[in-house]
Amino acid sequence: MTDAMSQMIAEAGRLLGPKAEITDPSEIAPWVSDWRGRVHGASPAILAPASTAEVAEIVRLAAQHRVPLVPQGGNTGMAAGATPPADGSALLLSLRRMRQIRSISAANRLAVAEAGVILADLHQAAHDIGMRFPLTLGARGSCTVGGLTSTNAGGTQVLKFGTMRSLVAGVEAVLADGSVHSGLGGLKKDNRGYSLDQLLVGAEGTLGVVTAVALRLVPAVADRAVAWAGVDSPVRALELLRFLEARTTSVEGFELVPQDSLDLVLKHIPDTRAPLSGTHQWHVLIEATTADSNYAIAAEIERLLAAALQDGIIGDAVIAANEAQAEAFWKIRDTISEAERAEGQTLAHDISVPVADMPRFITDAAAEVERTFPGVLASGFGHLGDGNIHFHVRAASHAAPDWYEAEGAAITRMVDDLVTAAGGSISAEHGIGQLKIDELERLAPPGRIHAMRAIKHALDPLGIMNPGKLVRG
Amino acid sequence: MTDAMSQMIAEAGRLLGPKAEITDPSEIAPWVSDWRGRVHGASPAILAPASTAEVAEIVRLAAQHRVPLVPQGGNTGMAAGATPPADGSALLLSLRRMRQIRSISAANRLAVAEAGVILADLHQAAHDIGMRFPLTLGARGSCTVGGLTSTNAGGTQVLKFGTMRSLVAGVEAVLADGSVHSGLGGLKKDNRGYSLDQLLVGAEGTLGVVTAVALRLVPAVADRAVAWAGVDSPVRALELLRFLEARTTSVEGFELVPQDSLDLVLKHIPDTRAPLSGTHQWHVLIEATTADSNYAIAAEIERLLAAALQDGIIGDAVIAANEAQAEAFWKIRDTISEAERAEGQTLAHDISVPVADMPRFITDAAAEVERTFPGVLASGFGHLGDGNIHFHVRAASHAAPDWYEAEGAAITRMVDDLVTAAGGSISAEHGIGQLKIDELERLAPPGRIHAMRAIKHALDPLGIMNPGKLVRG
Repeated sequence: MTDAMSQMIAEAGRLLGPKAEITDPSEIAPWVSDWRGRVHGASPAILAPASTAEVAEIVRLAAQHRVPLVPQGGNTGMAAGATPPADGSALLLSLRRMRQIRSISAANRLAVAEAGVILADLHQAAHDIGMRFPLTLGARGSCTVGGLTSTNAGGTQVLKFGTMRSLVAGVEAVLADGSVHSGLGGLKKDNRGYSLDQLLVGAEGTLGVVTAVALRLVPAVADRAVAWAGVDSPVRALELLRFLEARTTSVEGFELVPQDSLDLVLKHIPDTRAPLSGTHQWHVLIEATTADSNYAIAAEIERLLAAALQDGIIGDAVIAANEAQAEAFWKIRDTISEAERAEGQTLAHDISVPVADMPRFITDAAAEVERTFPGVLASGFGHLGDGNIHFHVRAASHAAPDWYEAEGAAITRMVDDLVTAAGGSISAEHGIGQLKIDELERLAPPGRIHAMRAIKHALDPLGIMNPGKLVRG
Repeated sequence: MTDAMSQMIAEAGRLLGPKAEITDPSEIAPWVSDWRGRVHGASPAILAPASTAEVAEIVRLAAQHRVPLVPQGGNTGMAAGATPPADGSALLLSLRRMRQIRSISAANRLAVAEAGVILADLHQAAHDIGMRFPLTLGARGSCTVGGLTSTNAGGTQVLKFGTMRSLVAGVEAVLADGSVHSGLGGLKKDNRGYSLDQLLVGAEGTLGVVTAVALRLVPAVADRAVAWAGVDSPVRALELLRFLEARTTSVEGFELVPQDSLDLVLKHIPDTRAPLSGTHQWHVLIEATTADSNYAIAAEIERLLAAALQDGIIGDAVIAANEAQAEAFWKIRDTISEAERAEGQTLAHDISVPVADMPRFITDAAAEVERTFPGVLASGFGHLGDGNIHFHVRAASHAAPDWYEAEGAAITRMVDDLVTAAGGSISAEHGIGQLKIDELERLAPPGRIHAMRAIKHALDPLGIMNPGKLVRG
């Protein structure tokens, strides 16, 4: 450990008190690897401030001692953006003790939550006042508001309410010079220059430490309908989405599931069964909601699906008869990745292309990958309505145990090339972190990398804000 | 004129051809003052490229010769952000020839419009495909997509659809180094780092020249209801908004009008009459729309207003019986500023505070200003639902002709101080330009100004992008 680092830790300890300055390696261990266990880092200490003022003090100390900080919430990120470097040269800055919901108002449709507030707790708080925070995702029990904001998280309800970017009304953050930016005023209109709030959303902690966020709330769900439809192809699935969108504003989830993924779930996940009796090449999980308790949402969706069936858009469909069945449908969707892992080695890509181009992209890209890497199985599932699917490539049954290491990079390069050629994004919702930084540099226009570096350098000239993530200094 | 400037003009002329390089002073004259005639600038030439490639060439020339550029669309801005400096040291870069709608799709709910596309033309193009671009404002016949984006324009329909920021799906811009940033991919999810798109929205041309914008479309309006209600106070007006919001999602305009403003309109604007027979201290103009042609929107609003009347929230209300009456209601709202000018000298402030605080702010701030500057009349009207009103201070009837020059700055400082103390914004929708730059520097937290300067310097190190606007280099 360098002298600067030990001095920094000692001073932070005096500042925060012993409870908030964790140096016991066994307490640190769970937080220095990413949750998928792909990337292993190291850090001599976790600093856990309890207030924005304490975060500001730590950032000032870090600037003074030139010690980099790695902000961390629930450590559920998919791109190792909250994992410290392996050489132990950075300190973990945990926001998990900042878990106050500072204010929440149904009249203003706003909640101000500190960075460490867990998503499920925010859901509950909104529910308690008859409102709803609509963004949700699998890690809801541990991911935090700060992490969700810093990664511009997505999830399954983006179709109607957008990603975090559109739900963030304002951000409070400690900038690299220790000053506090406060955008928590809750102003609906404010044209006083560059939007630092929007710049901090998705910046992965590289421009400042998000300490609190003003979040938009929407009316609570009065009723929902969950349906499962079988279709011939992704083209038909998109046709169904357009058909529904033209007739109702209630659809907020529209997830594509290939038959192959359904088969894996049925094989590996206990207590699952196929929603439809016949065989379909592709499936769609639809969730529609209403805030109006007088609105017969299930009847409406049933009527629309019957019309789609008659028009030949879908082959079959079923509406969940009750909450248990609705949950069973969602369980299929939510356990696809788990089922794939149980089957064998899988390579995941979180990609997007324009919505209209996605059906052809899924088919063409899968064919191209399977042709180039004989034996692998490629398919896409997920958020078709957002033009965002998880494009997974599974090893051949005879693949060597080191397939992932041996062929993974080449397959990923191919997928990323195909996505880029289609005008898409190599990271739709997971961010860049450290896992995709090389691919971003390889594929982004040089002007964009140059602009990002210029912004990074301008706001973090000492390079203490999560260095090595998103953009190299 | 400096040698560099003449050389730049000559080279630009060779590049663009004579039609696109305007040096005749009589042709330049209409474009070097802001439309309200407050600020008078000068420029030896207007350059009017017809393509993004030509804009990039001009920016490269400007960088090479160190000649600043002032991008300009319809020149309808309220803060003189598109007015060149008076010393003639900058060239006007008109985007008005870039008026192609590159693509428009009902299925994708997107239009890609070049910077010079006039808002009314975009409205028409969306209408032609059965869709709608919801943002609108008084200058719709001449303001352009590039200007609307660069100023994050607002208007009267923000309540439901947000400002330009939430309608912009992507931005194409020429950055200060001549590179082209293209965010026009139309991706609904893209987490590849800092959002340059969002940084360019509201940047007033100080970080790059917006050349085209991908814009979200919404379903066309099938029917609308326009209503006028009389209330006791701004508190009651907000109560009415909350009452409606809890019962319908159809309200998209909610404009507050004081009796005093109504009186001025009736006095000065021909063919206007009071919508209600009785006297009310305050009025609200409500617009509700539906995209569903089966939905009886007028009946719904009528029912809700009747309930609000019964609950004592409003004193009276009337629904426009036809389009002509609806237009007559809107005419009252839209001619308030004109009526005020006809009455005498007026000082306008475009301010916002949190929505919940606005009723008290209007009352308290008006009282405070009237107490401090005896004889003046202060009142607020406009977008109550956005927490954004136009806070106007009118000269006393006996005021000297130089009242505006003599007292204006002091009154504005007081209003800006009151707004800042209330956690509000001194520029809700008009931007900073050159008119509010001193007040921004006086009132913004130093950390914010520092961060904005750092970003400006990072992306425009030579200071050629609309210098002297928004933030000083």
